[in-house]
Amino acid sequence: MEVAERRYRKSLELFERAAEVIPGGIYGHQTPALTVPGEFPYYADRAAGCRYWDIDGNEFIDYMCGYGPIVLGYGCPAVDRAADIQREKGDCFNHPPSLMVDLAERLVSKIAWSGWSVFGKNGSDMTTWAITVARAYTGKPKIFRVRGEYHGGHAWCVPSHAGILSEDREHIHTFHWNDLDELEVLFRKHEGRIAGVIMTPYHHPVFDDSQMAAPGFWDGIRGLCDRENALLILDDVRAGFRLDQVCSAKAVGASPDLAAFSKAIANGYALSACVGRPSIKNIASKVFLTGSFWNGGVAMAAALACMKELEALNALERMTEMGKRLVDGLVNLGREKGIPVRCSGPYSMPYFRLEEDRNFMLTQRFCVEMSHRGVFFHPGHNWFLSAAHQIEDIDMTLERASQAFDALKINGGRV
Amino acid sequence: MEVAERRYRKSLELFERAAEVIPGGIYGHQTPALTVPGEFPYYADRAAGCRYWDIDGNEFIDYMCGYGPIVLGYGCPAVDRAADIQREKGDCFNHPPSLMVDLAERLVSKIAWSGWSVFGKNGSDMTTWAITVARAYTGKPKIFRVRGEYHGGHAWCVPSHAGILSEDREHIHTFHWNDLDELEVLFRKHEGRIAGVIMTPYHHPVFDDSQMAAPGFWDGIRGLCDRENALLILDDVRAGFRLDQVCSAKAVGASPDLAAFSKAIANGYALSACVGRPSIKNIASKVFLTGSFWNGGVAMAAALACMKELEALNALERMTEMGKRLVDGLVNLGREKGIPVRCSGPYSMPYFRLEEDRNFMLTQRFCVEMSHRGVFFHPGHNWFLSAAHQIEDIDMTLERASQAFDALKINGGRV
Repeated sequence: MEVAERRYRKSLELFERAAEVIPGGIYGHQTPALTVPGEFPYYADRAAGCRYWDIDGNEFIDYMCGYGPIVLGYGCPAVDRAADIQREKGDCFNHPPSLMVDLAERLVSKIAWSGWSVFGKNGSDMTTWAITVARAYTGKPKIFRVRGEYHGGHAWCVPSHAGILSEDREHIHTFHWNDLDELEVLFRKHEGRIAGVIMTPYHHPVFDDSQMAAPGFWDGIRGLCDRENALLILDDVRAGFRLDQVCSAKAVGASPDLAAFSKAIANGYALSACVGRPSIKNIASKVFLTGSFWNGGVAMAAALACMKELEALNALERMTEMGKRLVDGLVNLGREKGIPVRCSGPYSMPYFRLEEDRNFMLTQRFCVEMSHRGVFFHPGHNWFLSAAHQIEDIDMTLERASQAFDALKINGGRV
Repeated sequence: MEVAERRYRKSLELFERAAEVIPGGIYGHQTPALTVPGEFPYYADRAAGCRYWDIDGNEFIDYMCGYGPIVLGYGCPAVDRAADIQREKGDCFNHPPSLMVDLAERLVSKIAWSGWSVFGKNGSDMTTWAITVARAYTGKPKIFRVRGEYHGGHAWCVPSHAGILSEDREHIHTFHWNDLDELEVLFRKHEGRIAGVIMTPYHHPVFDDSQMAAPGFWDGIRGLCDRENALLILDDVRAGFRLDQVCSAKAVGASPDLAAFSKAIANGYALSACVGRPSIKNIASKVFLTGSFWNGGVAMAAALACMKELEALNALERMTEMGKRLVDGLVNLGREKGIPVRCSGPYSMPYFRLEEDRNFMLTQRFCVEMSHRGVFFHPGHNWFLSAAHQIEDIDMTLERASQAFDALKINGGRV
């Protein structure tokens, strides 16, 4: 703790000021504790590429990418330049900018099954609108979702109960990832009342291993939806742009009717999108959708530039390669040091834990040791690679990981 | 229609392209029709000060300010400079930027009754979070709201039924503006089950006159809330920063427990905020709140600069003065031309209609004539002034209004 107190002094001081005027000081997914108060930075000062600096001036090799959005690295010149050009013209107008149409055309051209797109600011705006479209399209109320999956902060899905009414979730039912039998039971039980199923492309809960779909899982869901005339909604907010060029459906073998994107769509500029099959377009035009800043041009310009740059850099392949180098390196180190590592999920967004760690204490301690050595590893959330991560960054990370493993052993082996 | 076809040719062509890939082509509050398809621009190209240019190159004196956000004029240098400085450092990080604390402190210091603040991206994020806080704080479900008021796009309040379930509004009850008796009946009927009342600072429905509170209305509501231990929530999303420096509560004589802001808070950068009384802070910290981009520093830097600039320019007084000049001028012209004008609401955001116009056809026609003359008047929504509107802009507007009144008479007097 002495190291941390010295290292994160300004973070802790500012947090005390924050706690006076902000409930909880920091709230939501950036809650500073990460279950280990005082051992990670609380406030960021600046960032570039795959590095960032906290307000104490500590430099970090980053593996969270702002919890996903930063897919090209912080401050990507191509994206910022495109944003600047639009910003010179303006952002928030009385009418949409013409590049809203360009962006819709671009998304539709990149997602073979889709015929149209709409835009918002948050992932939750789009997942929530998508279930509303499913209800409008089918005239039925029930939505099935996977237990433990995060779909946003709206009442139907928020991972909390404070202020939420039973009515908000009256027609939301959950099943377990990869449990097609359980979903079949739900379909039988609620036959004739089912609007849709919402799924992430793979299972990425917090504080648990990631899981890909078992063979037949996606086809089974599609079959159930087809029989019921229910819609299959892909929540690609977290994984989009890291499993395929845009939409993860093809990469995982899914065949959705609607798909929601946000996070990496514009390399950190606030934007979300929902695309859908042509057959749903007419109903979609009748489901209310708007926000004061939702037609803003700057984030749309950033999104167009981001997609172009992702292709130009072959970013998908690069993130996968760097992620594999990181994961393989950590697994090898764990084996070498006698502290086995378990990584799951795609290489571009791996989930890490120490294998013989029942209560996350050892994994947390490892991430704390990495934080003190200038590497930001989240101890309970999947990590993210970006196109800015280079071989040297990965290798420097692994060097520090080697030291962190040693520190674990010195500090009592298994905590 | 011939004038319009020539004048808005590119807008109409782009809209055709849009309709292929976007449900409805344009959706939400920027739906181009404005109930008069083809007679207004559909797409904006650029904007500066109180002027904007559509994609056909037509120049407009603007009275919508992006539906409210543009309170200092488009492209305000002081705000854009502050945003740029933060953008150089980064926007979306793994941790909040330090100026999140600065901004919370600033809001709290400007709103005497408040003790804390949180942030989001849309007004609807904050009004919805506020009713959730009220439910968590009171442990009760009922929310009362004024009929015809817009509070956002979330299911409990969205002005549409497509895809919305009865359960979404099971505990939402409406009453009429200024009808304290009706609200008393609601309080009696639901005694012991009431979480709060959500109100705008004055009544600003679309396609209807604005109304200020009658004497005793606010005190009556406060009294009812106090007796029931329910919270009074001010939805200051539309009016905030145009009735007072920040919060409209004092200007209208309200005494709320929570207040939501967005729109003008950062001169067009996407941001919203909710402030509350100190006594609610602990519960507020337990009500889930987050979004991928909600801690972004750029919009927060813009908000700090916007508030500073509003004060430095004495913008409130200026907007009120220019709005009064516009309203008085239109009323005088209407009298002179024999087509009486009725304006309601605050001068900084007046609602305009032609008095003897039962079906809005004449008001629409007048706004169309203004559109053809390079002035953007919305025919069914309150207008907005900004600090960039100068006497010359108002006077040029009135000159064109004089011609538009004459055109109405030529085109058949009362349509």
